[in-house]
Amino acid sequence: MRVTLLAGGTGGTKLAHGFALLDAPVELTVVANVGDDFELHGLHVSPDIDALLYTLGGLIDVERGWGIRGDTLSAHAMLERYGEPGWFTVGDADLATHVERSRRLREGHTLTDATAAMATALGIGVRILPSTDDRYRTQLDTDEGRLEFQEYFVRRHQEPEVRAIVFEGAETARPSAAVLEAIASADLIVIGPSNPFVSIGPILHVRGVRAALEASPAGRIAVSPIVAGRALKGPADRMLASLGHEPSALGVARMYAGLVGRFVLDEADASLASEVEALGMTASAMPTVMRGDGDRRALAARIVQELSAPSRDRRDR
Amino acid sequence: MRVTLLAGGTGGTKLAHGFALLDAPVELTVVANVGDDFELHGLHVSPDIDALLYTLGGLIDVERGWGIRGDTLSAHAMLERYGEPGWFTVGDADLATHVERSRRLREGHTLTDATAAMATALGIGVRILPSTDDRYRTQLDTDEGRLEFQEYFVRRHQEPEVRAIVFEGAETARPSAAVLEAIASADLIVIGPSNPFVSIGPILHVRGVRAALEASPAGRIAVSPIVAGRALKGPADRMLASLGHEPSALGVARMYAGLVGRFVLDEADASLASEVEALGMTASAMPTVMRGDGDRRALAARIVQELSAPSRDRRDR
Repeated sequence: MRVTLLAGGTGGTKLAHGFALLDAPVELTVVANVGDDFELHGLHVSPDIDALLYTLGGLIDVERGWGIRGDTLSAHAMLERYGEPGWFTVGDADLATHVERSRRLREGHTLTDATAAMATALGIGVRILPSTDDRYRTQLDTDEGRLEFQEYFVRRHQEPEVRAIVFEGAETARPSAAVLEAIASADLIVIGPSNPFVSIGPILHVRGVRAALEASPAGRIAVSPIVAGRALKGPADRMLASLGHEPSALGVARMYAGLVGRFVLDEADASLASEVEALGMTASAMPTVMRGDGDRRALAARIVQELSAPSRDRRDR
Repeated sequence: MRVTLLAGGTGGTKLAHGFALLDAPVELTVVANVGDDFELHGLHVSPDIDALLYTLGGLIDVERGWGIRGDTLSAHAMLERYGEPGWFTVGDADLATHVERSRRLREGHTLTDATAAMATALGIGVRILPSTDDRYRTQLDTDEGRLEFQEYFVRRHQEPEVRAIVFEGAETARPSAAVLEAIASADLIVIGPSNPFVSIGPILHVRGVRAALEASPAGRIAVSPIVAGRALKGPADRMLASLGHEPSALGVARMYAGLVGRFVLDEADASLASEVEALGMTASAMPTVMRGDGDRRALAARIVQELSAPSRDRRDR
């Protein structure tokens, strides 16, 4: 069974891990957000791809939720001595990832090829596809002016209120052939429980992705990143509010109406099911909070099961 | 007093440190070998400049003689996981140096400017000048074929016999204006106790350097890197033999005949003084082995003293 997961940030990455842990023969492709990518110390950093590489490669620092377990900070301290900005903490092994990726890009490889080679080197069987190989950057218009994504997210601790989101490069960036193929040939397409504005939004705004999703014969399911009105991690709830949406799973469901046939709500939000269904989607309430590996695997398994459950929407296969 | 030191490798770096430790008001400029420079993990590595930065900045791992004291190896291990070659050990803080330099070069700065900024950041008052900002690489023709310098020196542990030395880029590389000025305006020019073939030779082969040295009104002194027929470190003694020179301080003196007015021999080689003087240079025997900071400072002080001693050669001031 071919599953194509759209993911960025923590929630989507955990669900990718859940699919990777399934005993069932699932062939997983993750289409990863690259709107967070930025240049640091002259290197190309892809935070969402790194989270996938480290999680699926068993290297992630689970406590922190980013970076590599047991990593050292010698290079970071030295770069600060050289006057480099220190607000984005880069562990030493993590720096090696940025060095390796940058080397491959400078040698003319695409981000897709660089990612594939690095995933293979880390023993990862899941296919990780950058949503685009072209330059593409999420910018946030905030009450402090326009900020690069990482400036907003890390440097300013997501404190400025977001008024609008701009995808720099959206005019010219195109999805890779591999992304289009992964969407067209999937049996199941899952929109992970990631921030709809800055994790999933950037993927959907790569020109051609949304049309490919709508044209795919695959069943399409989205998982809410909002549980009981709160984002489990990050600023999705506050963004929903500041961008004029309802800060709830229902607000997210409205964003995906017309794009997916099923919407997975956390069991805590089961009462929203009828309102979600009124949007033309099948609502499924289930436990979505992924604390450990067991939760991740269970949610992935449950999503696969949903595919064969009766649906009220023709889009849902 | 303006001292301009030509240096590369361990001996020259230690002597640079000796001059930096002098109480006397010495304004030191080091013209550093860049023939060892190479590309590693897509980054520009300048081993001789790094040795100067780390030694003069008080960071060097004194035991090993290279790298940064207490450095970690997390990035190195990760780069090996990614399939990168591991024969050139790069500590994490050391990697930060390569990242920082590469960033500056890619932004369009010269190696001279990048080095100056990094030295300043490390609190180094000595001016470190790359012998050229142009691409320039020492290649060794050996009984195993042509090798890049670091391949020979580190990867092959200096085992292949060197038949010839080629300076790739010598046709086009030029010394920077700062190098020419440091030579022209010096009161004293010192050729450090560095390998004459692969540390000093590459500097002298940058087109225009030798002529600038010969035109400078400064006193010129060379210090033998060979003591009692042996290089204190590295393959200089074996290279002298394999390249048809006498493997002794006298063999080195012959290489510098006509270029310097004084030649410093180690006290162990005092018996060679008359043969050195027969080459048209004043020979000075003194302790040259630099174990600790005291030795370094003492050698630098002694060299400065020699400048005011009677000389038999008009080139010597």
